[in-house]
Amino acid sequence: MADAKGLTRSVAEERLRRLRVLFSRLGADALLVTHLPNIRYLCGFTGSSAWLLVGLHQSTLFTDSRYTFQSRQEVVGSKVRIVKKGLLKGLQGALQPSRRLRLAYSPLELSVADWSALQAALKGRLRWVDARNLVESLRAIKNESELADMKAAALLISRVFIKTLPLIRPSVTELQLSSEIEWRMKQEGAEGASFETIVASGVRSAWAHARPTSKQLRKNELVVLDQGAILRGYCSDLTRTVFLGRPSPQVRRLYGAVLEAQAAANAAIRPGVTAHSVDAAARKALGSRGLGDYFTHSTGHGLGIEVHEMPRLGRRDRTILQEGMVLTVEPGVYLEGFGGIRIEDDVVVTSKGADDLTDAPRDFLQL
Amino acid sequence: MADAKGLTRSVAEERLRRLRVLFSRLGADALLVTHLPNIRYLCGFTGSSAWLLVGLHQSTLFTDSRYTFQSRQEVVGSKVRIVKKGLLKGLQGALQPSRRLRLAYSPLELSVADWSALQAALKGRLRWVDARNLVESLRAIKNESELADMKAAALLISRVFIKTLPLIRPSVTELQLSSEIEWRMKQEGAEGASFETIVASGVRSAWAHARPTSKQLRKNELVVLDQGAILRGYCSDLTRTVFLGRPSPQVRRLYGAVLEAQAAANAAIRPGVTAHSVDAAARKALGSRGLGDYFTHSTGHGLGIEVHEMPRLGRRDRTILQEGMVLTVEPGVYLEGFGGIRIEDDVVVTSKGADDLTDAPRDFLQL
Repeated sequence: MADAKGLTRSVAEERLRRLRVLFSRLGADALLVTHLPNIRYLCGFTGSSAWLLVGLHQSTLFTDSRYTFQSRQEVVGSKVRIVKKGLLKGLQGALQPSRRLRLAYSPLELSVADWSALQAALKGRLRWVDARNLVESLRAIKNESELADMKAAALLISRVFIKTLPLIRPSVTELQLSSEIEWRMKQEGAEGASFETIVASGVRSAWAHARPTSKQLRKNELVVLDQGAILRGYCSDLTRTVFLGRPSPQVRRLYGAVLEAQAAANAAIRPGVTAHSVDAAARKALGSRGLGDYFTHSTGHGLGIEVHEMPRLGRRDRTILQEGMVLTVEPGVYLEGFGGIRIEDDVVVTSKGADDLTDAPRDFLQL
Repeated sequence: MADAKGLTRSVAEERLRRLRVLFSRLGADALLVTHLPNIRYLCGFTGSSAWLLVGLHQSTLFTDSRYTFQSRQEVVGSKVRIVKKGLLKGLQGALQPSRRLRLAYSPLELSVADWSALQAALKGRLRWVDARNLVESLRAIKNESELADMKAAALLISRVFIKTLPLIRPSVTELQLSSEIEWRMKQEGAEGASFETIVASGVRSAWAHARPTSKQLRKNELVVLDQGAILRGYCSDLTRTVFLGRPSPQVRRLYGAVLEAQAAANAAIRPGVTAHSVDAAARKALGSRGLGDYFTHSTGHGLGIEVHEMPRLGRRDRTILQEGMVLTVEPGVYLEGFGGIRIEDDVVVTSKGADDLTDAPRDFLQL
């Protein structure tokens, strides 16, 4: 982004240096990076089509002629090669190994088609080394500049939510509300939304990943608003659930239980614990209220250049939390035919525990 | 989408029937569909994580518990299976072939990781059949209901562009303008933007795929606005280039050349010609003005559930155009350090040739 502070050469070089240590340890001579957010992290390029080949001594970005000027402006610490006949042919041209090449790559982010074509082109001279999540493991821990950007993105979305509150009223449609939220993000300087803003009302609030529709909000409905903004390339992610009218004691109890689950998860976060133990804390809080079966997703996820990053605060993630990780904490309950409640904030892991980045009221808002 | 007309059972069944003919011809017993827009086309599901297994007699959607309610509402013509431990394990559980299974799939849309895991799990009983672009070949030709939706999406974005014109003036930022455009789309009933709206001004207009920034528009600049809306699941895509002030004769000539290239491409479109011949027509028009080197992308692409579909109006696409295909026609010229001009409309291929779906002025607008 022309208006982002952007990646400095020294940070890019440091990231490449650390990455070389990692893939060398796996016995590889080079790493092929095919996932665009990883490419952005390593060299600053924000275009929609590129591969990055990180060798032991140099790094080369392959992209096409649509990005000739843009790549020249954005890329730091890597060379740029503009390819004419696709990334695959471009890479094949560059990879002319005199001896066997041990190429690290992520099988999660390479298609069978590209894999087979490279395999065929470099027959016998290519040994693939599975290096999934290598760049992602670096990205999971944010440096100070990244944390400053993420704090700004989190505060931005918090402001947007608060400014949108007066518009949440009967007869406005979910789509109108979501478009108002996204408009406000950009007015506040965001590059865009981290994901399609969710506004789910009434029984639709029980769809954890509902897309907004032309349904109008009505009196006495739950409304889940899940929104995130991208600022300087970094995502935020905030969910609040509000009620249009006076909620019944039952709905109040549900809200209170979700809020308690979020507090339990936050309290469990500190360097050295596993991701799944944080999930377990939220799950235990809801389970003790008999709501375990209605909590149908994970407690949260890493956040950064992508809205879903490592680690996952879920049942099976054994990642050890470390200082500088940024996580969402977002337990919820979903009752089919009735409605759903989710409360989500973004936190950074510090030596003292979870520190909130988002800043919006968590009381049960009755509008 | 709850407010889309949605897929009818008879259309879903017809699509599955035609697909079965296609994969049977390749010698396959079943087709694994991993690309979400293809899944939406075949069974109506709009969630963000699913696989569809189309057998000769039945079809099954695999998704996770986040989508329990949504899949029940949306899916027609296929069964739904909610998986607990990921799509891969879910599919493995369902695929217990007593004999060797010949499984068609698209290597373009299956990761090496998933491919290897399935391969390992069903060792010796699985034969992969390359069926890339099979569903896409069906999707390329739109039926009447799809064409009605696409016409509505194209008219919607045309209205939005025209209504945005008064806002295009010095000192507004690219980001503000792009957010106004996206806000208007949703006010007009769109589900969202087909892609991140491009507003590129001044020298930045020479970046064919620039993202909007906080740069302010200035007097005597070119401004490229590239926008699309999704309506009832279908995309539109419209580009106009305007000038803030009085353009020089040189800029006028450039604009005229691009407009001529678009007309030449449109005139070349009819059933039975190849996609690359349409590209050649635009390229020839610009080449004859000495501008061939500044036209750095293809002339257009198919449009539908995705903003980029088959065919590609590019140098190497030999697809034969057929009635019912919807295409963008969008030649452009890009001069580094100076600016760019692109003009894009959406057309449907009819027996008589290209029929415009978009409807916005093509004169060189001087604002």
